[in-house]
Amino acid sequence: MPNILFAARSEKWEDYEHLLRAALEAEGLDCTLATDLAPDTVDYIVYAPNASVQDFTPFTRLKAVLNLWAGVEQVVGNPTLKVPLARMVDEEGLTQGMVEWVTGHVLRHHLGMDAHIVNPDRTWDTTPPPLSKDRPVTILGFGALGQACAAQLAALGFPVTGWSRTPKDLDGVLTSHGDDGLDAALSSAQILVLLLPDTPATTDLLNADRLARLPQGAVILNPGRGPLIDDDALLAALDAGRIAHATLDVFRTEPLPRDHPFWAHPHVTVTPHIASTTRPDSAARVIARNIARAESGAPLLHVVDRSAGY
Amino acid sequence: MPNILFAARSEKWEDYEHLLRAALEAEGLDCTLATDLAPDTVDYIVYAPNASVQDFTPFTRLKAVLNLWAGVEQVVGNPTLKVPLARMVDEEGLTQGMVEWVTGHVLRHHLGMDAHIVNPDRTWDTTPPPLSKDRPVTILGFGALGQACAAQLAALGFPVTGWSRTPKDLDGVLTSHGDDGLDAALSSAQILVLLLPDTPATTDLLNADRLARLPQGAVILNPGRGPLIDDDALLAALDAGRIAHATLDVFRTEPLPRDHPFWAHPHVTVTPHIASTTRPDSAARVIARNIARAESGAPLLHVVDRSAGY
Repeated sequence: MPNILFAARSEKWEDYEHLLRAALEAEGLDCTLATDLAPDTVDYIVYAPNASVQDFTPFTRLKAVLNLWAGVEQVVGNPTLKVPLARMVDEEGLTQGMVEWVTGHVLRHHLGMDAHIVNPDRTWDTTPPPLSKDRPVTILGFGALGQACAAQLAALGFPVTGWSRTPKDLDGVLTSHGDDGLDAALSSAQILVLLLPDTPATTDLLNADRLARLPQGAVILNPGRGPLIDDDALLAALDAGRIAHATLDVFRTEPLPRDHPFWAHPHVTVTPHIASTTRPDSAARVIARNIARAESGAPLLHVVDRSAGY
Repeated sequence: MPNILFAARSEKWEDYEHLLRAALEAEGLDCTLATDLAPDTVDYIVYAPNASVQDFTPFTRLKAVLNLWAGVEQVVGNPTLKVPLARMVDEEGLTQGMVEWVTGHVLRHHLGMDAHIVNPDRTWDTTPPPLSKDRPVTILGFGALGQACAAQLAALGFPVTGWSRTPKDLDGVLTSHGDDGLDAALSSAQILVLLLPDTPATTDLLNADRLARLPQGAVILNPGRGPLIDDDALLAALDAGRIAHATLDVFRTEPLPRDHPFWAHPHVTVTPHIASTTRPDSAARVIARNIARAESGAPLLHVVDRSAGY
């Protein structure tokens, strides 16, 4: 009978308690779930990286930590964490939400919607946009999220290139990897989607040099992580007209400070970190399923590679 | 060796001449293509309904008329037209363009993009939109265009209902037909897409009574035909807050007159009849293929049912 500690801010407990109990019961797990267990009795921690629990040393019989969301940058470097850490990979919530946000904003820019949504001059310009087959999209970061977005965009007819650190394959999508692959993936990208994890290797990945490799008039979507972009370099490229627009869902500081130049820039759209959000109902099922796997001796799913940082 | 008359405004000839000659040659057709043939020598007319040719009586050996675009309301009632009339059904151009516009604007409203695109108060509201599985979409008109849009929206996870005059089926989509089916299809539609043809039976189909059957806060997309909507009834429903937004691509008068209330309404988006546009390259191939079928004795594709009007 495992003991499960729920370590997150109290409003999360209100969202999750009922759903987690139901999901654990549905998995046939007879267990204790609480927010206040003695550390040396805890088998699993359901964890939000911004929780007050930051020292894992007292959890002497801990088997695993199950992250409540996809990003682990606030916990992966914690030296007191010695047990497996599982990221949230919630097809139904996180992945589906990301697919909807990415597909929607790709189509928004592809169709030139903004000029119709805000059209004070009542301009009637019947020039049609190109068809999707003539609008190459590149996705940097080709894990579960990147591949799900690529599949949907390819189904809509966009020529999609997926780039990742290590080689990956997906039917109907051009893939590349490594530094050489990155240059080519950038140079063809009329729309660039950033879905890389936040690691030391990806900080400022989109810097002035790499921005300069994008075609004139490219659009950037960042639903990945704030530090992937050198903000000043992006603002300079936008001001110079080299980059037509940036739609950003994630930022180095969130909420985005009210005096940040992104808010006022005519060619930046800010969305408030909503592209991929853990939906409690499906996330609770994912966590319960993973604990059930561990209890039956099966390997945990979505374990973080601590050396890679994700 | 058939003679083909190209009857459309002169700027269309500039777009099409080269593409049509190439497509006819690719079909192995040895033929004459011109804009100025003697009527009694013409076998086929490639036709724009706004062309100067409006009396088909002198075309004594005419075999068929091939429309350059999907809408035939300006020609279908012409009593001098006695031969088969083929609509343009251009999967690659018309249909794909429609799928992109409909999918894009469904996602725009689903994700609440407008509040991010125009956000002068710098509001940071992290409430996520529901997932697509919780956003029912209804498509009125379930021919080639409606079914292609439905398939794409269903692939994105939206529960889709397709309604048509006569019974139709599509995997993964709820279908209904007739007057009873229409009431049910309207009452579940958080987003309603109009893709009906323009016929006497569909004029003002979306009138005050039918608007009242939509759920509170529904969104309407009309990339179909202008007369499908009773404009005054729509404006009243928008002003009352019953309908949250209407995004309209087609109008009773086009270009939409500058003093039309749609332009100024905060909950109406006007797009300039760009959802589904004949793309010359693919349309030329469709026309050449249909002429080749007729010449080989095969039935023409996409022949208009003159009694139904489309």
